[in-house]
Amino acid sequence: MQIGVIGASKCSKEAEEIAFKVGQEIARHRAVLVCGGLTGVMEHAAKGAKSEGGLTVGILPGFNPQDANPYIDIKIVTGLSYARNIIIVRSSDALIAIEGGYGTLSEIAFALQAGKPIIGINTWKIDPIIVIKDPVDAVKKAIELSCKERKP
Amino acid sequence: MQIGVIGASKCSKEAEEIAFKVGQEIARHRAVLVCGGLTGVMEHAAKGAKSEGGLTVGILPGFNPQDANPYIDIKIVTGLSYARNIIIVRSSDALIAIEGGYGTLSEIAFALQAGKPIIGINTWKIDPIIVIKDPVDAVKKAIELSCKERKP
Amino acid sequence: MQIGVIGASKCSKEAEEIAFKVGQEIARHRAVLVCGGLTGVMEHAAKGAKSEGGLTVGILPGFNPQDANPYIDIKIVTGLSYARNIIIVRSSDALIAIEGGYGTLSEIAFALQAGKPIIGINTWKIDPIIVIKDPVDAVKKAIELSCKERKP
Amino acid sequence: MQIGVIGASKCSKEAEEIAFKVGQEIARHRAVLVCGGLTGVMEHAAKGAKSEGGLTVGILPGFNPQDANPYIDIKIVTGLSYARNIIIVRSSDALIAIEGGYGTLSEIAFALQAGKPIIGINTWKIDPIIVIKDPVDAVKKAIELSCKERKP
Repeated sequence: MQIGVIGASKCSKEAEEIAFKVGQEIARHRAVLVCGGLTGVMEHAAKGAKSEGGLTVGILPGFNPQDANPYIDIKIVTGLSYARNIIIVRSSDALIAIEGGYGTLSEIAFALQAGKPIIGINTWKIDPIIVIKDPVDAVKKAIELSCKERKP
Repeated sequence: MQIGVIGASKCSKEAEEIAFKVGQEIARHRAVLVCGGLTGVMEHAAKGAKSEGGLTVGILPGFNPQDANPYIDIKIVTGLSYARNIIIVRSSDALIAIEGGYGTLSEIAFALQAGKPIIGINTWKIDPIIVIKDPVDAVKKAIELSCKERKP
Repeated sequence: MQIGVIGASKCSKEAEEIAFKVGQEIARHRAVLVCGGLTGVMEHAAKGAKSEGGLTVGILPGFNPQDANPYIDIKIVTGLSYARNIIIVRSSDALIAIEGGYGTLSEIAFALQAGKPIIGINTWKIDPIIVIKDPVDAVKKAIELSCKERKP
Repeated sequence: MQIGVIGASKCSKEAEEIAFKVGQEIARHRAVLVCGGLTGVMEHAAKGAKSEGGLTVGILPGFNPQDANPYIDIKIVTGLSYARNIIIVRSSDALIAIEGGYGTLSEIAFALQAGKPIIGINTWKIDPIIVIKDPVDAVKKAIELSCKERKP
């Protein structure tokens, strides 16, 4: 199972802590963490996943694998700039959005368009997003919904 | 000058009429109409532009130039599906959003991220969007702001 | 009809002259010239097309419409870097390759994969490329084959 | 280290065997196998890597993670069709091409353009490709060159 975590490269201290816990919990469920590979929410989620021995994928906007934060195992180097956002969405069975700016909004839009389950923590208020404050519950719900998604 | 018109392939009768007038007005200002090339808002905007002898560009998601509506002059065949949304935004000096679903929301997000002027008519309520109800005034504002944008 | 002209941004004096004549001839056939929008073969082809009152499209790799050479009418700003090569191919009913390096080779590969007619002038020697030295004859053949392509 | 293996989805029996050995050897060097995730060379390389407990990444052209062959661990779902070829190249520190058609040719072109080391086994004859027949030696060379590549 591949769970996407989306959010900005610059975020609040609170978002960093939430992202870390979300990453931990994804790893505890033995799911793969998919993210944009950069700083902020992406880095703290990946750090959390690695603290529990998880596997992390960073789908990078630029041309250099070294753009990835130190907690990324698999570096997908797209060179497509923000067009890579849609690849993050498509590569995730469910998504968790933590805070986030316009980039995150574009990912939310693509996820809703594709009918992907999306859990929101302190993020954009758009109707079908499932709002869950607690990181552990958020991941649990994401896993649960992405399982359903998998059934033919 | 290239003005983008964004909105859904299925839209209300009112949106069709607004899109037609927006397209007409873009052509009257001798600007090029950029859109997604399909039906709904895209087709009616292109039809309006052609009724005034304008030039229209359709940035298509699929592989077939014949996917374009009959009012598209230049067919950009991307084969990138919705990832083409970001190309519509980048190829526009300013954008006008008319109604619209999640695809339009992704374009709005990319436009705001890129700092592009965006005028909204009955569309998503997101803060920096400039709300103007009248099609003629909306195009006037889009032209005006995209001129400013061009100054170095 | 949309005819693609592909070749490097740095090319020989001879290639510049051939590209100019190819562009002229495309415009004389009232076809739209599609290219990568930059210097070298792209610029000279666009210059030739404009000298005959043609319409030119530049599918740009970067983020700035001002990257386009001065002979480009429609600026498609992709921000996808060389991934834009495939859009040039898909947006062309037939292609003419003039000299060219690895970028041009990627376009030739995509064109052959898509079954698009491709005429070569002093370019990579790959089997299904139709070799025609004379620019006027090359465009004539490209137009003829892209007409055939259009039949269902 | 991430090593790309490129080749067609339909290939000879010999290519299947070579791909399997190449995949095994990549895993033995504890490098990650990157490929297009489909059948033929991609599937046999991934099968080889898994037989040695390696980690495999499939960068898929379509929209469905279930397009991936059964030996792919990480599924990157691009929805970009053949434009995903450039992502395979950019995500690889070095590439090994086995046989291959026009799709593989596009990847070779992008790799050469990016200055990436590329080893060829029974593939297109293009000058800077390093021809090595033996799968074990081919992987050894790819690893060696991608190490060099990493030095700043």
